[in-house]
Amino acid sequence: MDLSNAMFDTIKRDLEQLEDELLAAVDSPVDIVQEIGEHLVSAGGKRIRPALCLLAAHGGPDFELKRLLPLAASLELIHTASLVHDDVIDEAGTRRGVPTANAKWGNQISILSGDYIFAQAFRLVSAKDYGNYIYHRLAELVGDLSTGEIIQNRQVYMASRDVEDYYNRIQKKTADFLEICCELGGVVSGMPKEKTKRLAEYGHCIGMAFQITDDILDIEQTEEKIGKPAGNDIRQGIVTLPVIRALNESPDREELERIVTDSDMTDEMLERAISIVKASDGVDFAKARADEYLQRAREALPEDLPEDIREAFLMVADFIAERDF
Amino acid sequence: MDLSNAMFDTIKRDLEQLEDELLAAVDSPVDIVQEIGEHLVSAGGKRIRPALCLLAAHGGPDFELKRLLPLAASLELIHTASLVHDDVIDEAGTRRGVPTANAKWGNQISILSGDYIFAQAFRLVSAKDYGNYIYHRLAELVGDLSTGEIIQNRQVYMASRDVEDYYNRIQKKTADFLEICCELGGVVSGMPKEKTKRLAEYGHCIGMAFQITDDILDIEQTEEKIGKPAGNDIRQGIVTLPVIRALNESPDREELERIVTDSDMTDEMLERAISIVKASDGVDFAKARADEYLQRAREALPEDLPEDIREAFLMVADFIAERDF
Repeated sequence: MDLSNAMFDTIKRDLEQLEDELLAAVDSPVDIVQEIGEHLVSAGGKRIRPALCLLAAHGGPDFELKRLLPLAASLELIHTASLVHDDVIDEAGTRRGVPTANAKWGNQISILSGDYIFAQAFRLVSAKDYGNYIYHRLAELVGDLSTGEIIQNRQVYMASRDVEDYYNRIQKKTADFLEICCELGGVVSGMPKEKTKRLAEYGHCIGMAFQITDDILDIEQTEEKIGKPAGNDIRQGIVTLPVIRALNESPDREELERIVTDSDMTDEMLERAISIVKASDGVDFAKARADEYLQRAREALPEDLPEDIREAFLMVADFIAERDF
Repeated sequence: MDLSNAMFDTIKRDLEQLEDELLAAVDSPVDIVQEIGEHLVSAGGKRIRPALCLLAAHGGPDFELKRLLPLAASLELIHTASLVHDDVIDEAGTRRGVPTANAKWGNQISILSGDYIFAQAFRLVSAKDYGNYIYHRLAELVGDLSTGEIIQNRQVYMASRDVEDYYNRIQKKTADFLEICCELGGVVSGMPKEKTKRLAEYGHCIGMAFQITDDILDIEQTEEKIGKPAGNDIRQGIVTLPVIRALNESPDREELERIVTDSDMTDEMLERAISIVKASDGVDFAKARADEYLQRAREALPEDLPEDIREAFLMVADFIAERDF
C-alpha cells in the first residue's frame, strides 16, 4: 500500500476544497502579488499540516468543513511563508523541484511575499469567530518557528554535542507545528479538552519523529531521491541527531568535529564526515529515537476516535517510519 | 513651542507605560532573541502610531489604559517588524543613528527577527478579547504594508509619471497604517462608528501628508539633518511626488527621466537630478498637496472630542506641516 496516498484518503474531498481556499486566500488585485501567491501555494507539498487539522476535527462532535477550512488553510499558509523566508536565508534555488520565490523574483520580493503570506494566514482566521485561544496559538507558533530558526542559525559550525539542544530546536521547528495542527482541529470542532490534549501529544510525537527522519535522510540518501545534496545540513554547519551521536561516540569524533566546525568545508571533507557518521551507530540511534516517538504517538491517540480517523492517524505514523524520501 | 514634544503631552504617562509593554512583549527565554528584541524596541522613534491609537481611545466612553496598551504596543511592533525587513531589503546600515539589525546580526537573523516581532504583535492582541474586527484590520494592515512595498520594489527605475500610482503606493505604505491606529483606538474604547470613521479619515489624511513631507525632505534636506543621504529615494529608483511633478512639467524632464531610470546612477547624476527637481515647481506642488491633506485632516476631526485630545490631534497636523527632519 502506498501510505503517502492512502493516509489522507478519508479527507480527500476536504483537501480538494482546501486547494480552492488556499488560492482564494492569496487572491490580490495587484498582479505581481497574485502571481507570487499562486506560485507559492501551487508549488505543492503534502498538505500534511492542514490534513492533520482536518483529521483531528473529524473526531470532534461539531465538525463542519466550511468552518474548518480557513483554519486549515491558515496553517498551510504559515508553513508556506516560513519556507519562503527559509529559502531566502538558505539561498535555495529549488524546492520540490520548482524554482523558489527568491530564485524567481529575488530576495527583496521574497521577504515581502513571506510577510504577505503570513498576513493572509492571520486574515483568514480573523474571518471566523474561532476565539482568542486559536489566535494566540497561531501567533505563538510563528514566534516559535522564528525563534527555532534563530537558535539554529546562531549555532552553525559550533558542533554542539548536546542532545537536549537538538530536541529543543526540532520541537520549535517542527513538532510544535504538528502539535498545534492536531490540537486546534479538535478545539474548533468542539472536542473535550482531555481529548485535544492527547491529539496534541500525538502531533508533538509525530513531529519529533518526522524531523529526526528528515535528518537521517540527509545523511543516508542520495541527491536524486531527496532533491537536495546529501549532507546538506552538515555543509550548512547544522549538526543533527546522527551527527551528534557520532560526535559523542565515534572513534573518529575529533576528525568529525574538525570538519563540521569548518565553514570552508570542501566536498571531500563533507564526504568524509558522512562516512564517519555512517560508520558510527548514529543513524541506528536516531532511528530508534524516531521509533520511540512514533510508538508514543500511537499510544497517545484517543481510543474513541471514529475508526477511519484513527486508522488515518496510525497510517501517518507508519508513513513517517517507512518513508525514504 | 516644540511641537514634537508638546503634541503627546496629554498621554505622556500612557507612553511611559507603553515602553514597558513593548519590552515585555519581546521578552524571551532565548538570550539572543531577547537581545535583538530589546535592541529593536529600544531603538526609539516617536511612537507616533501607538500615540495616535491612545489619543483616539481617550475620545471614547470606555477608555481603559490597561486594555488599550496591548493594541497600542502591537501597532508599534508591526511598524518595527516592517522596518527590520525594509532595512534588510534596502541594505541600510543605520536607522535613527543606531545600527540596524542587519548591520549588527546579518540578514538571516534579521529576516527571522522581523517574523518574530510580527508574531509578538499578534500574540499581544490575542491576549485581550478585542474581537475579530481588530484582528482582521491588523492582518489586513500587514498585508497592505507588504503589498505596498512589493509594488514599490517592482516599479524601481521605471520613472512612472502617474500621480495616482504614487498616491496608491503611499496609502498602502503609510496612510492606511495611521488610519488604522486612529480607528482602532476609537473602536476599542467604545466610540460610535460615525466618530471612528471621522478619526480614520483624519489618520488617512495625516498619513498621506506625513509621507509626502518625508518625500519632500528627501529632496530638500542635507544628510546631517535627516540621517540619510539626500536623494536617497532617487538613487534607489523610487520616484516621489516632487520628482513625478518635475517629470511631467520640467523643461529638463527628458534628462531627469534618463537619470532616474539609470540603476548605475553616479553621484553627479544624482546631484543633477536633485537640482532639476529643485528648479521645477515639484517641491511647491508636493507641499500644496500635503497642506490640502492636513486641512482635510483637521476638518475630519469630530467636534465633540475632549478639548485636550482635539488639541493634540491638531498639533500632530501642525507638526507634520512644519517638520524639517
